[in-house]
Amino acid sequence: MAQHIVTSFDEDLEHLDRLIRDMGDLAAAMTKAATRALLHADNALAQRVVSNDVVMDARQTELDKSAVTLIAKRQPMAQDLRAVVGAIRMAADLERIGDLAKNIAKRVGAVGKSATPHSLTHSIDTMAGMVLDQVQAVVRHYVERQPNALVELRDRDEKIDVHYTAVFRELLTYMMEDPRNITACTHLLFCAKNLERIGDHVTNIAENAYYVLTGSQLPVQRPKLDETQMTVDS
Amino acid sequence: MAQHIVTSFDEDLEHLDRLIRDMGDLAAAMTKAATRALLHADNALAQRVVSNDVVMDARQTELDKSAVTLIAKRQPMAQDLRAVVGAIRMAADLERIGDLAKNIAKRVGAVGKSATPHSLTHSIDTMAGMVLDQVQAVVRHYVERQPNALVELRDRDEKIDVHYTAVFRELLTYMMEDPRNITACTHLLFCAKNLERIGDHVTNIAENAYYVLTGSQLPVQRPKLDETQMTVDS
Repeated sequence: MAQHIVTSFDEDLEHLDRLIRDMGDLAAAMTKAATRALLHADNALAQRVVSNDVVMDARQTELDKSAVTLIAKRQPMAQDLRAVVGAIRMAADLERIGDLAKNIAKRVGAVGKSATPHSLTHSIDTMAGMVLDQVQAVVRHYVERQPNALVELRDRDEKIDVHYTAVFRELLTYMMEDPRNITACTHLLFCAKNLERIGDHVTNIAENAYYVLTGSQLPVQRPKLDETQMTVDS
Repeated sequence: MAQHIVTSFDEDLEHLDRLIRDMGDLAAAMTKAATRALLHADNALAQRVVSNDVVMDARQTELDKSAVTLIAKRQPMAQDLRAVVGAIRMAADLERIGDLAKNIAKRVGAVGKSATPHSLTHSIDTMAGMVLDQVQAVVRHYVERQPNALVELRDRDEKIDVHYTAVFRELLTYMMEDPRNITACTHLLFCAKNLERIGDHVTNIAENAYYVLTGSQLPVQRPKLDETQMTVDS
């Protein structure tokens, strides 16, 4: 009988893991599609990203309900409780990634086919690729129970921040060169910031996942390297 | 004996409420100070906001630990469990408000004493005042158990969004008028966006608080009125 109860609890936890993986897959797909829509001025694709956000919200609601029901029904202790509360937190970050991808998609119309220089498109595309890799990897490392990989993953967020700072400066330059670029560049600035923030949510997920898997906090918080607030004062 | 247990549980919940109220007070103080620092180019005050974020993070960690301990120890059901999970969520939103205030504070140096036109200062100040009222009110309505007031409060977020759209357009105008304004205006744009996002977190808190107090979702999701993504394409 005890065996039976234990097995059911494990099944409940596996169900939460599956929901996290589904939300992670959707977050990655939305990030990829939003960037593609932005760089190719693809309004139809942008519209699909906006619609997908409804699916994401529904999945989060389902996970939250499952988690709360699981706590009420099984009354888990220690590590099990940690896993359930961790799942609620990771789901909240994945839902926010979906929101940020939707926000990028909603700006596609305002950016339009404006004459974005090739080097800028390339910079944003590279940054988006780095962010997408992180989103996909963080959920994989969690589901495959690889805490050490999460440490390395968290540290890679620094590179995204450095890249964001470069994109920020590049965008300011284009705005200064020609006032007609200002509106489009402003929206691109928010898109780049959203990508940087997706990276921050990946970091949160990595920290939560590490705690769930090991019971310890991730070693030493890395310093924050988005330097645009501090250094751009020219 | 049962009475004793019930009373202790209520005390635990009151402790969570106190922590939420403390975090709410700190979030409001940080929002107010960050705006003041920005509009008066007060670097020392900005630095204090940045330092306060550490206090905010510590309070969230304390609340999370108390909540998880409470679940493990008391194994609450139904409404009580909802209150505990709700507290964890509200704390996460309050912590994010602190982050956004910190982000405004970190931009104070980059904006500097640049020749911000009086009308723009006035617009940002008005918007910040509206946001601050919302932050203070949402925690008060929750702690004083006033679900109906939360409905009205959530609806007031629309006015902030309308105001943000106006500030956004005003900032674009200043950038187009004189390229030397671009860097400062870009940082002001992020500050205005941060204020708008603080409003969104207040909405989240109102929705969670309403659910904790009533067991129902807030009636009909209001439409999102930040129109800058959709309409500014000139």
